[in-house]
Amino acid sequence: MNSAAVSVGIVSPQRFHSVAPLTLQNGSVLDTYELVYETYGTLNTDKSNALLICHALSGHHHAAGLHQEDDAKPGWWDACIGPNKAIDTNAFFVVSVNNLGGCHGSTGPRSINPNTGKTYGPDFPHVVVKDWVNTQAALADHLGIDVFAAVVGGSLGGMQALQWSIDYPDRLRACVAIASAAKLSAQNIAFNEIARQAISSDQDFNEGRYFEEEKNPDRGLGLARMIGHVTYLSADGMGTKFGREVKSGDFDAGYDVEFQVESYLNYQGRAFTQYFDANTYLLMTKALDHFDPARETKGDLVSAFQKATCKYLVLSFSTDWRFSAARSQEIVDALVRAKKNVASAVIESEHGHDSFLLPIERYTNALKTFLDQLLIMQKGESE
Amino acid sequence: MNSAAVSVGIVSPQRFHSVAPLTLQNGSVLDTYELVYETYGTLNTDKSNALLICHALSGHHHAAGLHQEDDAKPGWWDACIGPNKAIDTNAFFVVSVNNLGGCHGSTGPRSINPNTGKTYGPDFPHVVVKDWVNTQAALADHLGIDVFAAVVGGSLGGMQALQWSIDYPDRLRACVAIASAAKLSAQNIAFNEIARQAISSDQDFNEGRYFEEEKNPDRGLGLARMIGHVTYLSADGMGTKFGREVKSGDFDAGYDVEFQVESYLNYQGRAFTQYFDANTYLLMTKALDHFDPARETKGDLVSAFQKATCKYLVLSFSTDWRFSAARSQEIVDALVRAKKNVASAVIESEHGHDSFLLPIERYTNALKTFLDQLLIMQKGESE
Repeated sequence: MNSAAVSVGIVSPQRFHSVAPLTLQNGSVLDTYELVYETYGTLNTDKSNALLICHALSGHHHAAGLHQEDDAKPGWWDACIGPNKAIDTNAFFVVSVNNLGGCHGSTGPRSINPNTGKTYGPDFPHVVVKDWVNTQAALADHLGIDVFAAVVGGSLGGMQALQWSIDYPDRLRACVAIASAAKLSAQNIAFNEIARQAISSDQDFNEGRYFEEEKNPDRGLGLARMIGHVTYLSADGMGTKFGREVKSGDFDAGYDVEFQVESYLNYQGRAFTQYFDANTYLLMTKALDHFDPARETKGDLVSAFQKATCKYLVLSFSTDWRFSAARSQEIVDALVRAKKNVASAVIESEHGHDSFLLPIERYTNALKTFLDQLLIMQKGESE
Repeated sequence: MNSAAVSVGIVSPQRFHSVAPLTLQNGSVLDTYELVYETYGTLNTDKSNALLICHALSGHHHAAGLHQEDDAKPGWWDACIGPNKAIDTNAFFVVSVNNLGGCHGSTGPRSINPNTGKTYGPDFPHVVVKDWVNTQAALADHLGIDVFAAVVGGSLGGMQALQWSIDYPDRLRACVAIASAAKLSAQNIAFNEIARQAISSDQDFNEGRYFEEEKNPDRGLGLARMIGHVTYLSADGMGTKFGREVKSGDFDAGYDVEFQVESYLNYQGRAFTQYFDANTYLLMTKALDHFDPARETKGDLVSAFQKATCKYLVLSFSTDWRFSAARSQEIVDALVRAKKNVASAVIESEHGHDSFLLPIERYTNALKTFLDQLLIMQKGESE
């Protein structure tokens, strides 16, 4: 069976061109910008069934379905988005956007700076989670959506969902933060810094102007991806998947790749360089590092959540050590202390941080039950 | 108080020059080689109190004491080796050797290949744990030590201690393996592979012949160290040590180092390149990957331990995720099934893998009690 048959089918990206100037958190102003996005399902007449998907570090707008019949893979969250799936496109109108600063079509380091006529590259302004939330709200305005039924995201996407609930409390009825954190740990910042160092120390990085010499910091970006990838998997999951299987036959005597896990990682690293931009990777990791919704409330997360009015679902995974269940528990604890309506679960899974992308039954059931209930309640209220 | 005062004091490295050809596991032959080593304490008349220290990935022979009065730091395991310390130099004659292939004075990639008159560099043969054990046994012959009271090591050092108990069962009375594993996990191999890729993709690596151009792959080697370092610490320990403290004042708007943890890691990376050789790092990580004492018994670790006759102490640390307590438990389980005499403990510590280097009271007490008991028993037997 073609995966499109049980999915949203063939989808086409759309573009939102903002002509209203955008002032970023760091003070920079973009006179204009574009966001590329996809939608799945149908917006109902009272526009009450819209659901926003926020993507993670290496994600983009293409979350479900296929662009062409013969696509090798569907969108990155096809396991969860589609007819009768956890995020049910028979019920919801799903909006999925490539974030500002991304490299899949939205304005970012690869775009032309209208003030200079040249590619932004490293001159693209620093963007933080609050900026993304503001641009997503502008897209909602464009689509005529006053209130999202839910804003949903995993990892860095969950951070955006949390920030939505604080910055636009009247514009979402539910916030779903999966495998996320209220702020990065020192260990997480450390892994991000190593990834950035790998990129910036690549001889082809050229201080971010690699494109001017028609080069790309493939080795550094590949290394950054490899580091990330190992931390997104659990030790046990890697053991199950790869064991200590050697690539072919017995050990050779050289420093070449010998174990399957090495071969896999090298492939992942190389593949990543084909579709991701190094300057965007730097930008996204810094946005992760800087995320701290309690900054404006002097570190008090309970106060930060005070003005929120939505329901929350907070999910985490037992073997996720990059965004551990304990970090989700911190979010839940703050929400409870702020007397907010919050449901949470720690899902058993051996797949580490990557679990949030996978069709794990208890996970998709929890997500589906929570989201379906939103529409039932909404229907009840409007009757 | 000068640290030398509570330590073994001023020590001087010594050299062992082997003129017997050495055939390595991969078939290469070294006609001659040198090992640099230190000793602490006094060998007793019946030579029954000798204790061998095996070092880990980035270690060397200088395990205790100072080389000069004004040394900023003592040897790497000074917390555990000295008068009345866990490894009591009033009781034991401690031998600490820089492994073959190392970069602190023993024959290795930085040495001159006598067959060519040029630096070995990447042509230095691949060395595995069994080779180290054989060269350490040759050093014992040179020192007139037939039987070690104990062979002791942490991490990769613990692997050497385990291999000693299998390959030279009559030449040690006790094996102490701390924060070690019977073989690396897929995750561990993955981190090692990323470190190797960081080194070999540095533009100054020059296929391992960096010295010919008077260059050094500082960025790659620094990255490798940073990756290792993060994995040697626990997430909680890093949180306690660094939190999310910014380096100075508030965030700036650039991609420069902002958090204390980034500054610390960058320093560690740079410092490492001043005293460690990239080819040795590649060699040591491959020796880690290849370690598998059960290879000769078709993967059966119980059978591998069958011929061992020594006592064992196996220690691990609660927050060590690079060589977790579960990996030590695998060693203990195999030893129990092989009906060997084994004591073990999981030590509570927030310091991750690096715990084995630290003066943690329950740890040093467990180690000291086990080792002191060896001499008491030995004395009892010889009376």
